[in-house]
This record gives sequence, C-alpha cells and structure tokens, in this order.
Amino acid sequence: MLIVGELINTSRKSIREAVENRDAAYIRDIAGKQVQAGAGYIDVNCGTLLDSEAEVMGWLVETVQEAVQAPLCIDSPDPKTLDTGLSLARFGQPVINSISGEKERYEAVLPLALKYKAKVIALCMDDGGMPVTAGDRMRVVRKLVPDLVCAGVPMGDIYLDPLIIPVGTSDQAGSEVLETIRRIKAEFPEVHIICGLSNVSYGLPNRKLLNQAFMIQTMTAGMDAYILDPLDHTMMGFYYASQALLGKDEFCMNYLSAYRNGL
Amino acid sequence: MLIVGELINTSRKSIREAVENRDAAYIRDIAGKQVQAGAGYIDVNCGTLLDSEAEVMGWLVETVQEAVQAPLCIDSPDPKTLDTGLSLARFGQPVINSISGEKERYEAVLPLALKYKAKVIALCMDDGGMPVTAGDRMRVVRKLVPDLVCAGVPMGDIYLDPLIIPVGTSDQAGSEVLETIRRIKAEFPEVHIICGLSNVSYGLPNRKLLNQAFMIQTMTAGMDAYILDPLDHTMMGFYYASQALLGKDEFCMNYLSAYRNGL
Repeated sequence: MLIVGELINTSRKSIREAVENRDAAYIRDIAGKQVQAGAGYIDVNCGTLLDSEAEVMGWLVETVQEAVQAPLCIDSPDPKTLDTGLSLARFGQPVINSISGEKERYEAVLPLALKYKAKVIALCMDDGGMPVTAGDRMRVVRKLVPDLVCAGVPMGDIYLDPLIIPVGTSDQAGSEVLETIRRIKAEFPEVHIICGLSNVSYGLPNRKLLNQAFMIQTMTAGMDAYILDPLDHTMMGFYYASQALLGKDEFCMNYLSAYRNGL
Repeated sequence: MLIVGELINTSRKSIREAVENRDAAYIRDIAGKQVQAGAGYIDVNCGTLLDSEAEVMGWLVETVQEAVQAPLCIDSPDPKTLDTGLSLARFGQPVINSISGEKERYEAVLPLALKYKAKVIALCMDDGGMPVTAGDRMRVVRKLVPDLVCAGVPMGDIYLDPLIIPVGTSDQAGSEVLETIRRIKAEFPEVHIICGLSNVSYGLPNRKLLNQAFMIQTMTAGMDAYILDPLDHTMMGFYYASQALLGKDEFCMNYLSAYRNGL
C-alpha cells in the first residue's frame, strides 16, 4: 500500500506563493511533514506555471530533497518538465505522473520511464477521451498494460489510475470505478491501482465525508495506492482503520501506533 | 437497503431504567427518534431481564407501537419471548432476531417464522460453535439457506448474519467476513446480509472510526442491512455517502436530503 503526498502543487495558493518567493523553507517544511505523516512518495506538481514549469520543477525537486530522502512523484503533462524532475530525483525509484493510452503522450513519456527506470501512473484513457464505464476503462487497460510491459516496464511498476468522475455529475461514476478495480485485480493481479480522492465529491456538500468513504470503498475493492493529503488526520485514521479491517495490519499494530500518534 | 434501529435494548442503562420504571414516554421517544432518523425497523431486546423477559417484551412492543408504525425486529434467544413479541407486532412484516443452524434453536424458532410469516435473521453458526473463516460460515449457509427455503421461508426473507468477531482478537476477522459476503452474493444473490457493527472494534481504541469503516467496507462487498444506532449522525452520514458512491442513490438525492437534514 502506497501513500503519495499531494500537497506540493502550485494549484494550491500557499505553494504558489512559496514558489513565487522562492521560499525554500516552506517547501521543505511541507515535504517533511508529509513524510512524517506517512507519505511514502512526495508528489511535485507545478503545472499551473506554464511558462516556467520545467525550471520551477527543478527548483522544487532540489528543495524537497534538501528536507526528505523520500522518492518523488514527478507530476506534469509536459515531457520536458518530467525529464527535468526525473533527472534530479536522487532517492529511490521515482514515479512518473502520468502516462496514458493517448498516442502522443504515450510516445513522449515512455522513453522517460525506460531512461529513469521509473514507476508509471498510467491513466485509463486514450485518444477516445474520458472513460465513463468500467468497459471503457478496461478497453484501454487491455492495450496499455501489455504495451508497457512489452516496452520494458515491469508489471509491478505500473500504477493504473481509473480516472475519477464526480458522482454528482454521474451517479454511477463511483460504482463504475469500483467495478474497474475488481476487473483489473482479476485480469492483472500484479498491477497496482491508484487514484486521487477529491474528484469524486466535486460539486457536492460535505466533500471530506465522500472522499473518506470512497477511499474505504476502493481499498475494499483492491486499490492499493492513493494520492492524498497525509496531513488530514481523519483521512489517515480511516486509512489505518480500513487496512486493519482488511486483514492487512498484523495484530492491528499500525492502527494502534497511529492512534498513539494522535490519529 | 435496510436499517434496524438498535437502541431499544435493556443492555443499555437508560433503557433498563425506563423498563424498571415502566417509563413508556421514554421508550416512545427513542422509538420515534429512530424512525425519524431513518430506521426502517425497530429492534426490541430485553434479553438481560431473564426472569421477566417475555412479559417485558410484550410491554415494550405495545409501547413502541404507540409511537411508531414501523415493523419490529423481535430480538431474543428465547422462543417464548419471540412468540410474545411477534403475536403483538401489528405493523408490516416482523423480523425474528434470530434463528441459526444450531439444532435446538432452529427447531424452536422455525415454527414461529412460519406462523407469523416473519423475515428471519439467520446466524452463520451451528452446533460446531462460532465460525472463524469464510469457509466455516459458508458450510453453515449452504445447509441453513436451503433448509429454510424448503421449510417455506422465502429466499428474500432470509437475512444472513455472518457473525462479527473483533478484529483486535483476530486480525483476519474482518477480511473473512468480507469474503463471506462476496461468496453469499455469488451463491445466493436473493438472500440479504445483515450485521451489527460494534463487535468488530471491541477492545480497540477509537471504535467509532472502525465501525464506520467496517460499514462502508461490508456495504461495498454486498451487505444490504445493518443493525445500528440511527441517531449517530456521522454513521448515518457515511451510510448515505456510501450509498451514493455505490450508485444506489439516483442523482445523489438521498445524500443531499440527508445533508440538508443536518447529517
């Protein structure tokens, strides 16, 4: 089970300001807190800064690594930015966020995955557009996974992201994702499955409740990695509770330890 | 999906005192509040009062029905008490809580189920004792369900209770129940599955968090009925959130309505 800390993202106001002011201390602080709270990877995303994305990525990666030795999740739609971030990532095996079945993106990002022997987050999407049903997603998965493996990416380095549509937009959006997870686990048991948790609740009230419930549901169906805010104590409490109840926490040791640490 | 309100139970101090004082107003109030909060059935249990159980059951059933017209879940290990409660239940189809595969209990309770055309909560347990694995439970289910159906209980009136062991006692206790639910849904899709939620967390800290997570997990696996405290706002909020995310709430109407009602 893998937690990717999502906080270092320039779409968040405090991070954008820290980047504008080159406030390295703030970035280091957020990176350190996420690792301390249980994040195994730190996501780094400055995609809102279109003009200076690659340069800022370089600065962020260096700055984060002054604070923590965690591996990084280099998060950009731009191959040049990915390359810059990956070339500077020093600790462990980095993650590329993300590749997809879209031809142009696939062809631009695959060489980076091979060059840096990186794990890849692979979106269940191709040039046909955003998937709606589990069937749409599996059609992409059944091409994307064999393609990646044939190209040299080990099965266990692939993290499929089913892509979450808000349940307020389509009331079957959650159940289609759960069905996708079950089918992936049945067909490709070695492949990992990851998602971000906030899209599902977009446009509805009490979003945290929905995000927490969706984490527990997807974990029950077989998802094994999350991009989330590890400083959200309730979310992390549910993470440990859910792991314990799924029989993935011997003697509930991690749950008890999380409780003692205030979760 | 069915919610059975669990609060009218003499193991709870306030209910025991209300029974001792024949405080009908208090019982009526708790019954009314549970129905208002979303309970479809009201459980009535006075099993702690061994000497006067049948008589108190009669009083409780009459008192509850002065306040609400909800069907009742008559909850006792004692056939005579069950008979008393069922004979007085006036609204809708009552539920017997519970029958099991234990020979003596099965033979004593089955005639009541047929006499009152009641739904039955059937414990996944026989004279071999408490089940541990999903296999233990399915061994009971594969005899108990056909036996009940052959005796004349409709498949859709059977609510199997997998029996929840604390995850603090056995760290696979939760996952064995989830596996049981999946197997029951695959083998007997018309049968319902029910449980109480508090046992799973016994002996561990922050029990509410574990109970909430276990509700979401079991609902994801296919459980469709719960015995719980409907006045617990957070639990009911997660109930509606989980239903919406599972695609069982058209346009998220129930979730939005619950939110407007303060959940």
